[in-house]
Amino acid sequence: MTSTTSIQHLAQHVGETVTLQGWLHHRTSKGKLHFIQFRDGTGFVQCVVSKSNVSEELFDALAGAGQESSLELEGEVKADERAPGGVEVSVQGGQVFQSVSEYPITPKEHGPDFLLSRRHLWMRSKRQWAVLRIRDAVITAIRGFFDERDYLCVDSPMFTPAACEGTSTLFELDYFEGEKAFLTQSGQLYAEASAMAFGKVYCFGPTFRAEKSKTRRHLTEFWMLEPEIAFADLDDVVELAESLIVHVVSEVLRRRQPELEALERDLSKLECIKGGFPRITYDAASKILLEHPDSEFVAGDDFGAPDETILSEMHDQPLMITSYPKNIKAFYMKEDPADSSKVLCMDVIAPEGVGEIIGGSQREENLDLLLAAIAEHELPMEEFEWYLDLRRFGSVPHGGFGLGLERTVGWICGLEHVREAAPYPRMMTRIRP
Amino acid sequence: MTSTTSIQHLAQHVGETVTLQGWLHHRTSKGKLHFIQFRDGTGFVQCVVSKSNVSEELFDALAGAGQESSLELEGEVKADERAPGGVEVSVQGGQVFQSVSEYPITPKEHGPDFLLSRRHLWMRSKRQWAVLRIRDAVITAIRGFFDERDYLCVDSPMFTPAACEGTSTLFELDYFEGEKAFLTQSGQLYAEASAMAFGKVYCFGPTFRAEKSKTRRHLTEFWMLEPEIAFADLDDVVELAESLIVHVVSEVLRRRQPELEALERDLSKLECIKGGFPRITYDAASKILLEHPDSEFVAGDDFGAPDETILSEMHDQPLMITSYPKNIKAFYMKEDPADSSKVLCMDVIAPEGVGEIIGGSQREENLDLLLAAIAEHELPMEEFEWYLDLRRFGSVPHGGFGLGLERTVGWICGLEHVREAAPYPRMMTRIRP
Repeated sequence: MTSTTSIQHLAQHVGETVTLQGWLHHRTSKGKLHFIQFRDGTGFVQCVVSKSNVSEELFDALAGAGQESSLELEGEVKADERAPGGVEVSVQGGQVFQSVSEYPITPKEHGPDFLLSRRHLWMRSKRQWAVLRIRDAVITAIRGFFDERDYLCVDSPMFTPAACEGTSTLFELDYFEGEKAFLTQSGQLYAEASAMAFGKVYCFGPTFRAEKSKTRRHLTEFWMLEPEIAFADLDDVVELAESLIVHVVSEVLRRRQPELEALERDLSKLECIKGGFPRITYDAASKILLEHPDSEFVAGDDFGAPDETILSEMHDQPLMITSYPKNIKAFYMKEDPADSSKVLCMDVIAPEGVGEIIGGSQREENLDLLLAAIAEHELPMEEFEWYLDLRRFGSVPHGGFGLGLERTVGWICGLEHVREAAPYPRMMTRIRP
Repeated sequence: MTSTTSIQHLAQHVGETVTLQGWLHHRTSKGKLHFIQFRDGTGFVQCVVSKSNVSEELFDALAGAGQESSLELEGEVKADERAPGGVEVSVQGGQVFQSVSEYPITPKEHGPDFLLSRRHLWMRSKRQWAVLRIRDAVITAIRGFFDERDYLCVDSPMFTPAACEGTSTLFELDYFEGEKAFLTQSGQLYAEASAMAFGKVYCFGPTFRAEKSKTRRHLTEFWMLEPEIAFADLDDVVELAESLIVHVVSEVLRRRQPELEALERDLSKLECIKGGFPRITYDAASKILLEHPDSEFVAGDDFGAPDETILSEMHDQPLMITSYPKNIKAFYMKEDPADSSKVLCMDVIAPEGVGEIIGGSQREENLDLLLAAIAEHELPMEEFEWYLDLRRFGSVPHGGFGLGLERTVGWICGLEHVREAAPYPRMMTRIRP
């Protein structure tokens, strides 16, 4: 089709005549002028249509074109310091593909249910456009980070025969001939097998939780990144998580300035994410919470969302909490050789009240200790035979973590609810559109 | 942990002393020498251990170490033209982490069921290692291709409320409170919505087919890449598919030479994939099949696997077949304005008998024609209301395609069965490990 220019690259074409294809985002008409906020999916730009510069047919067609009409516009790119992106377009020609009236999402306020039911259209609005462009940049930054460091992408399966950490939040389905299958909650156990074959790996795909909760932090379907490293200890895992977060934030700042502006994001909150994250133990974090007037934390418990909020608001950078009690953590975490009541694990709590975005650990590589842990957690031993093989045949110290994509995007974008960070969010009461 | 060197980068360290961490792949001992084929997940290298160069403890430990024992070896990298990768290591020290005996997968032949049941170990063998390293390179090449061209990654959902192309091969599950959900068979309809918001997009994630078939081309869970472009016609879609395939093959050739060697892949079959793919219509392909002595093709039908095999063996490069009859293709394909019995679609048939790896089309952007097609296919209209919105509010010519990752990897690797192209393949009779 016609050779066109993207709005995101318009600033490189000042003085040139270009063709844009996209949609009418907003129009104001004054006598012999139309001011069109035009979007093409890569950005927004103001196009000025003067009656004297275009055919009467085009001018009249634009006078009748409502929000989301599809258009082609041809015109000269002019530098304009006051305009977002520094340019505007003086229109010389074009055509209306489809003239739209009564587009349901108007600039006025709509409720979340109204918008979520129209997610396929809502994502065209400037704020959602910005969030999902940032989501793309986060994905690209994550993959680039691991590819550059020679990690291999080895996808873990979606269909699994058994629950990794209990069955209460599993989606179950009929496989073939009466067999049950479960949708994966985490690719980690498989990633451990992959790491023994490939050294350094990551999987990055959808995971599923049938949680009956309607909080602002939960989706039933979300993407999780899970790197796993052979020959690694907890320090390696902690270092990797910190480097990754610093890289992702810096890439978003480098590549998504217009989008962060559209979100009116306080950039200073991101610019300070430079590494040297505060690190404390579970015991130290417990002490803080027990002394905090607003906390209902009970000594020995895992931290709940309100606890994470309190801890996360104490620092500008993500907080890394290590050494949790063994009895509140997953069976596969490595027992601390210096304190058998603790495990060598790490949670990363994002600032600004966001809460946990990463959970990781060194894994138990000792066959006998792992057998004991599976028994203690009352998990079905026969389902873990293959996993135990990894400790029978060339076991090595290893570890990794899981990073929730939508929570990370939510933090970077400063969102109130994680649902806006998924293109088509799935929640307890929502699988449409 | 210890700073180590990857085998894939060893050739840059000739003359240096390095530390390797990994596993014993094979050992031959002759008197005062051990010849160890050593793997670290990034490659394989021969390590020579002379009794005079190492401690008696290490030499004896290695004498007792079987396949897949985990090791650390320190030694000098020596250039050796005869060795794969051009280097070998003269060992000076090290340690055995875990000494293994009776590793179940030996160099002898094993049947496919035996190996698939031990997939978590089988992937350590050289051939599987090579396939999955190539799979990673294909994924990276695909994402790089689209990222460079300003496509936005917008993931389509896994949970969907309705079937896109009939319900016979859908996995169904209980969502919440009695509601049913289906696992996605294709992200395309959502990708179309995303393209109207972002211009050029792709989704790349798992898709599911509950097909009761046990052919060498079918998995119940496989990854599919689906680009979708606003303001595009069939020619744009065809050009994009060809450029992508050429890019992916050239990246695998550039980055995965040792792996292609390990597979004994005939490189000439890949080196000839340079673009200018042969293009024929459905009618022309039908004529070839009807005249072919081995074909049971019936005029007007879709091409079956044996038909694809015949067509695919006629060319060195992938074959692009366009203009199929409307009645055998999906409802969303755009009717050919020049022949209303045909649709503007494209299938790409990989050479060497592999068959279809891509299916794509221009989409019907006309609301009335799309309404008629949904009615004609007897699909539940109310489930497509959101999709119809895309034709009500700023409809534009657009198109895209779906590429099956595992089939593409299978073709590039020269595999007999697509199951080896998935890290943890899922088939009708297999969801373990």
